[in-house]
Amino acid sequence: MAIGRETIENLLKLGNPKWKTSITSVEPNKLKTRGYPQEDLIGNISFPEMVYLLIKGELPPKSESKMFEAVLTSFCDHSVTPPSTQAARIIASTGSPMHACVSGGLLAFGKHHAGAIENAMKTLQEGVKRSHGDIEATAREMVDEFLESGDKIPGFGHRYHNEDPRARKLIELAKEYGCSGIHTELALTIQSILLEEKGIRMNIDGANAGILSDMGFDWTIGTGIFMIGRLPALVAHIYEEQTREAPFRKLFDTEEIYYDGIDERRIIKEDEK
Amino acid sequence: MAIGRETIENLLKLGNPKWKTSITSVEPNKLKTRGYPQEDLIGNISFPEMVYLLIKGELPPKSESKMFEAVLTSFCDHSVTPPSTQAARIIASTGSPMHACVSGGLLAFGKHHAGAIENAMKTLQEGVKRSHGDIEATAREMVDEFLESGDKIPGFGHRYHNEDPRARKLIELAKEYGCSGIHTELALTIQSILLEEKGIRMNIDGANAGILSDMGFDWTIGTGIFMIGRLPALVAHIYEEQTREAPFRKLFDTEEIYYDGIDERRIIKEDEK
Amino acid sequence: MAIGRETIENLLKLGNPKWKTSITSVEPNKLKTRGYPQEDLIGNISFPEMVYLLIKGELPPKSESKMFEAVLTSFCDHSVTPPSTQAARIIASTGSPMHACVSGGLLAFGKHHAGAIENAMKTLQEGVKRSHGDIEATAREMVDEFLESGDKIPGFGHRYHNEDPRARKLIELAKEYGCSGIHTELALTIQSILLEEKGIRMNIDGANAGILSDMGFDWTIGTGIFMIGRLPALVAHIYEEQTREAPFRKLFDTEEIYYDGIDERRIIKEDEK
Amino acid sequence: MAIGRETIENLLKLGNPKWKTSITSVEPNKLKTRGYPQEDLIGNISFPEMVYLLIKGELPPKSESKMFEAVLTSFCDHSVTPPSTQAARIIASTGSPMHACVSGGLLAFGKHHAGAIENAMKTLQEGVKRSHGDIEATAREMVDEFLESGDKIPGFGHRYHNEDPRARKLIELAKEYGCSGIHTELALTIQSILLEEKGIRMNIDGANAGILSDMGFDWTIGTGIFMIGRLPALVAHIYEEQTREAPFRKLFDTEEIYYDGIDERRIIKEDEK
Repeated sequence: MAIGRETIENLLKLGNPKWKTSITSVEPNKLKTRGYPQEDLIGNISFPEMVYLLIKGELPPKSESKMFEAVLTSFCDHSVTPPSTQAARIIASTGSPMHACVSGGLLAFGKHHAGAIENAMKTLQEGVKRSHGDIEATAREMVDEFLESGDKIPGFGHRYHNEDPRARKLIELAKEYGCSGIHTELALTIQSILLEEKGIRMNIDGANAGILSDMGFDWTIGTGIFMIGRLPALVAHIYEEQTREAPFRKLFDTEEIYYDGIDERRIIKEDEK
Repeated sequence: MAIGRETIENLLKLGNPKWKTSITSVEPNKLKTRGYPQEDLIGNISFPEMVYLLIKGELPPKSESKMFEAVLTSFCDHSVTPPSTQAARIIASTGSPMHACVSGGLLAFGKHHAGAIENAMKTLQEGVKRSHGDIEATAREMVDEFLESGDKIPGFGHRYHNEDPRARKLIELAKEYGCSGIHTELALTIQSILLEEKGIRMNIDGANAGILSDMGFDWTIGTGIFMIGRLPALVAHIYEEQTREAPFRKLFDTEEIYYDGIDERRIIKEDEK
Repeated sequence: MAIGRETIENLLKLGNPKWKTSITSVEPNKLKTRGYPQEDLIGNISFPEMVYLLIKGELPPKSESKMFEAVLTSFCDHSVTPPSTQAARIIASTGSPMHACVSGGLLAFGKHHAGAIENAMKTLQEGVKRSHGDIEATAREMVDEFLESGDKIPGFGHRYHNEDPRARKLIELAKEYGCSGIHTELALTIQSILLEEKGIRMNIDGANAGILSDMGFDWTIGTGIFMIGRLPALVAHIYEEQTREAPFRKLFDTEEIYYDGIDERRIIKEDEK
Repeated sequence: MAIGRETIENLLKLGNPKWKTSITSVEPNKLKTRGYPQEDLIGNISFPEMVYLLIKGELPPKSESKMFEAVLTSFCDHSVTPPSTQAARIIASTGSPMHACVSGGLLAFGKHHAGAIENAMKTLQEGVKRSHGDIEATAREMVDEFLESGDKIPGFGHRYHNEDPRARKLIELAKEYGCSGIHTELALTIQSILLEEKGIRMNIDGANAGILSDMGFDWTIGTGIFMIGRLPALVAHIYEEQTREAPFRKLFDTEEIYYDGIDERRIIKEDEK
């Protein structure tokens, strides 16, 4: 078989790698994640340590490991009130398979829902960057800017909780584990001002935003971490819907719909004009 | 204002609960998951224990807690070879936000991909049910039935690994933690037969199917648990794609497409006929 | 550069086409769909004819073209009552982008929702196959079998409409266009029996199932066609939600949730036992 | 039965409409879309007219009806080269059901892919707004601004086509149907400059952006319209994958993956340090 130069060059071009990754390598009978053989990881590290390793490329120090475990656990569930849980259960009610229901639930992690953790992380990370160490003054400035703009400060206030029990616990643990740094300090300083002047406290997103930022997570990964923490609840809710509710259930009656300006019309054909 | 009987009855009907759940209750400043106040769970239980609690309604015994941690960790990642990871990265390449990329990746958890763990769990659970305790004979029968049908036994053989390192490690841990029961025994007995006669070993799905079944998980929740274990890798891959690759990248050339029977045609107008 | 045999063979292997398709070919400045240059199709065929061409590989005869247009139009919208529309709007309310909202809505096209059209097509296609031309007797048998099993006959009865106005119109058009064949006849015969004995009429899925089957569509494509017809409404509903409603709106109050058996519990630590 | 004031007030509150819509009203045996009884629409209007009615709330004038039909048809298919089609087929290969595959495909309509039509519409609509009628000067300014910024002008140039055959045909039709207005004029003027100076022509998105803008569609609905036009191809590709390809097929070999910096590491336990 004779192979021309052009063919060979074309073939060589095809030989270019299609994919490039630093996460896991695959060889027959050998899987290495971030360099560690998977059989050495399984049983030797915690699941949150695996999450940390996958995202950051390194295993966490012991204190961060415990903190990250608490962070993931804190995202667990907020019953059927979040739109993501409602979407997942409504989809489950139609008989879609588990993986489609979970995906549908996650699609509701839009900027007004899951976006809260990313916005809170971004706000704190930008705040720390501009503070030059003067957290007190920066917190004051940030509060004033938000009040002036009329926007809510992300990470503060909650539509169901005046005092979010998860936030308080997370801050306690951050101090106990020595994981509380300058971002958490900024969040707490903002809380002091807001509590005194507006009666508003930090919510779970504010607490986790400070802690995750102090652990070096970039704000763009915030929704990713929230999804990891919340997914088990979506699975549990879908399973509950599938096993305990009738399929295709009606969540409301047509009487609960308001038809806004739908007046009867008829098609005028050209020859009727 | 006078309210008629009909109105009241209608209103009362509307008062029926729209949603019913046993997972988490919400009151102002109080969240209870499966009865436990969330602030008591955060920092006191591991994340896998939270997953177990959400799905099963109870906290696991200590040995199962360690085992479940290893199971979730074992699902971590298989590089860019699974269709779910490819779909997630292709979607990320178009500039879709993180939550949409994750959802797209999970949609590839179809019956031929993530379905493997459910099929393996179902096969073992049905096997144990019909065994009346005679595992040896049941394993033999099951192997013969599958060989006769020409189907692969779910949970055995792997397209990349002759000896899946994750399976071996999981079985070791199951024995060490005392979590190996009759389903795992059935899986191991099937492996003995297949290894001798076909040179085929258990893969990660076979091992986890035995272990999860011994922990009392119904096979219908298998994909749900796999998704929880694999989600962190999807997040890591999407993040890698977003931060290290050019947007909208070309994964292949048009030369790599084969057009099967697309011959040029033209539209014949009625008046040309 | 010397290239060894092994390398060349490996390269040749890589040269195998990654993708194979009969739908559209791509060359520079030339796109042919099912053989027709796209610039000849645009402006010369209707959009439903394009849909037909893409799915079936041929342009439809004139009568089928008009019928298929009516079928797609009939799937248009059922207000906010379907779970797919609710899911799409709930997701839109969280600020997810249009394409993510549409995807979430489509994920609710599960077997109990969009599955209805496929089930109806399958039922009619299997009925015709076993009828050996005796539609009257087959219809009788099918009704008896369903009544005995306690299942609903797919395509008959509707939870909002006793007499589905879309079904009646579609059947009229099928007769007018000469598109009514043996599957539609079977559907109508079943309706006669059900109407007399149970007061139940054909719904939109029953009518379209008969018509699409008579046009030669396999039942497995039913959900695909329904999605094409319904997608514009999802886009319209998402747009309405985004432009007229406040973000992250509350669809119900916590008072409307019933917590089933969530009694307060506390964690018993090992050393307290 | 005695009902207290509080109960009644509570019940009345529940009676507030949960949903509000102007698209379609539902009464028993009566469905009205934008005021028109659906049985009057089916068979009397084209499917693109239904799309227009759903989105804009009015039926289109005759010329726009033909133009909109051509626009939807032009979005039909670009073979397996778009990431959305690849994602849909990869997901189909795993055995996911049709609706999940379609959803996964649509999730790839991110800002770098489907975003092109919206960006092109936005660019033209903003250009027209600032032009005060002087299209020539505005086009010159816009080209200069983009060239200076180094960004591509959305709607011009194509990675596969030097002269997009769909764009040329659409512009011809817009003139023939009298649907070409100031936005299309701006697009054509930009093309004249780019063609002379850079050899770059309008692509399908540029042409449709001008035309849809002249028909009064807001740029934020661009992706929605593209999805409606492209969905049939996704359905056809998924169907082709499901019926002609082996399940779970391998699109590349592990040799085509480049592992970037995955060096073997081992876990150092605390007591080994």
